[in-house]
Amino acid sequence: MRVNYEKWSLRKKHFWLRIWEDYEIGYLDRDLIPILVVLNRDREIYTTSSCSGRIVIVDGNIPWTREETSVVFKSHIPITTSDLVFIYEKPPRKAYWLIVTGPIIHFSTTSFRKAVEVLKRARGVGFKHSGIMHVSTSRGVFTELVTGVYMTQLLRLQDEYIVAPEYLNRILLVFNKALIEGKLRLQKLYEELQKYLPENLDSQVEEELNKRNIKLVEQKPIEIFYNMCRDVCRALINIY
Amino acid sequence: MRVNYEKWSLRKKHFWLRIWEDYEIGYLDRDLIPILVVLNRDREIYTTSSCSGRIVIVDGNIPWTREETSVVFKSHIPITTSDLVFIYEKPPRKAYWLIVTGPIIHFSTTSFRKAVEVLKRARGVGFKHSGIMHVSTSRGVFTELVTGVYMTQLLRLQDEYIVAPEYLNRILLVFNKALIEGKLRLQKLYEELQKYLPENLDSQVEEELNKRNIKLVEQKPIEIFYNMCRDVCRALINIY
Repeated sequence: MRVNYEKWSLRKKHFWLRIWEDYEIGYLDRDLIPILVVLNRDREIYTTSSCSGRIVIVDGNIPWTREETSVVFKSHIPITTSDLVFIYEKPPRKAYWLIVTGPIIHFSTTSFRKAVEVLKRARGVGFKHSGIMHVSTSRGVFTELVTGVYMTQLLRLQDEYIVAPEYLNRILLVFNKALIEGKLRLQKLYEELQKYLPENLDSQVEEELNKRNIKLVEQKPIEIFYNMCRDVCRALINIY
Repeated sequence: MRVNYEKWSLRKKHFWLRIWEDYEIGYLDRDLIPILVVLNRDREIYTTSSCSGRIVIVDGNIPWTREETSVVFKSHIPITTSDLVFIYEKPPRKAYWLIVTGPIIHFSTTSFRKAVEVLKRARGVGFKHSGIMHVSTSRGVFTELVTGVYMTQLLRLQDEYIVAPEYLNRILLVFNKALIEGKLRLQKLYEELQKYLPENLDSQVEEELNKRNIKLVEQKPIEIFYNMCRDVCRALINIY
């Protein structure tokens, strides 16, 4: 399979600009920026929708995505019981699920070779469930990097608590710890990919980066994360 | 990348024979057999360790695999509260987690083309997280087919119940339903791949199959599953 580089480049430009639109409206997880930059600086890679790892509450019969399942709470940093008071105050439409997900990075390359090279390194630092998901001449070789860090907990049905409020704290300890585990793997991925990329620098991306002069680009993912969560993280580090 | 077909074929033979060893000692999920046969009948595909979907209890601080996490209960069919009495009788070494996982199929092909063709069809029938995981000249293009059907529930810590016994039944309803959802997707995958495979029949596999004359090969995955769970499934179908 040969990728049409012209079409592919247009998509890269589109997604690259969207990162900064999302950044400006505060829609982007800030601790994701360094890894997005490392990948996009390579001429043969662009990233699409990705996540640095998060805790959510969804309201649905099942925790995985469906039309009838909606996210009612979302956080990219550890959470406390006071964030979740609402689940005991307001019954769900269906059921409240607590979910923690490790980082998920989506990217496209112009070749299988490049995708396989990134995959190999990602697997080595704990992104064990990663894989090439589909391929097309205009969209390229589309790959997902994902860890096994994923847990759910059914907290409340419409008519019944499954987890009593007094146990919520114990559960959040476990879920927050998993979130941090995910962030540590993101940091490792960043370090690993930085050794390898860029193979060929994308001069347009480089130019744009210099123009924008975004300070976060110079920080490590884990530094940004600690800055995002500050007191919450400090408290947790004392516990673990 | 070119696969060394000679080496690859030796591996196929090895894994193909292991299926029947596992089958004979009762180690193989019986409802997995039809899909394994469909894949292996193609000259350019062999399967490795796979699962038709299951419910387990693990004892560990986290539900994903680690050295310190052990499986203490496993079932490929729906379960009832009486299966789990032990968790309220005997405290865990760390923590008891209930986990349901949809089907997971691992296979290797001699080409990217073949892997991508299977992937495309699998994604279309709900194996949304599937991907090519790694490649090598002797092992081929190694692919995982996996659904998003996955849930965990922390049931008990060493010193505390998180889910009281009286709520277990409600949770099992949800988890059993997810297990069945996974089995239905396995059935769909089987139907979908049967239309496409084999592209080139593997005559050795075919010969072996005829020799063994295993009745299950002629059944659909979902038929075998219903036979495996009988009364338990009948009871559930009345509830859902």
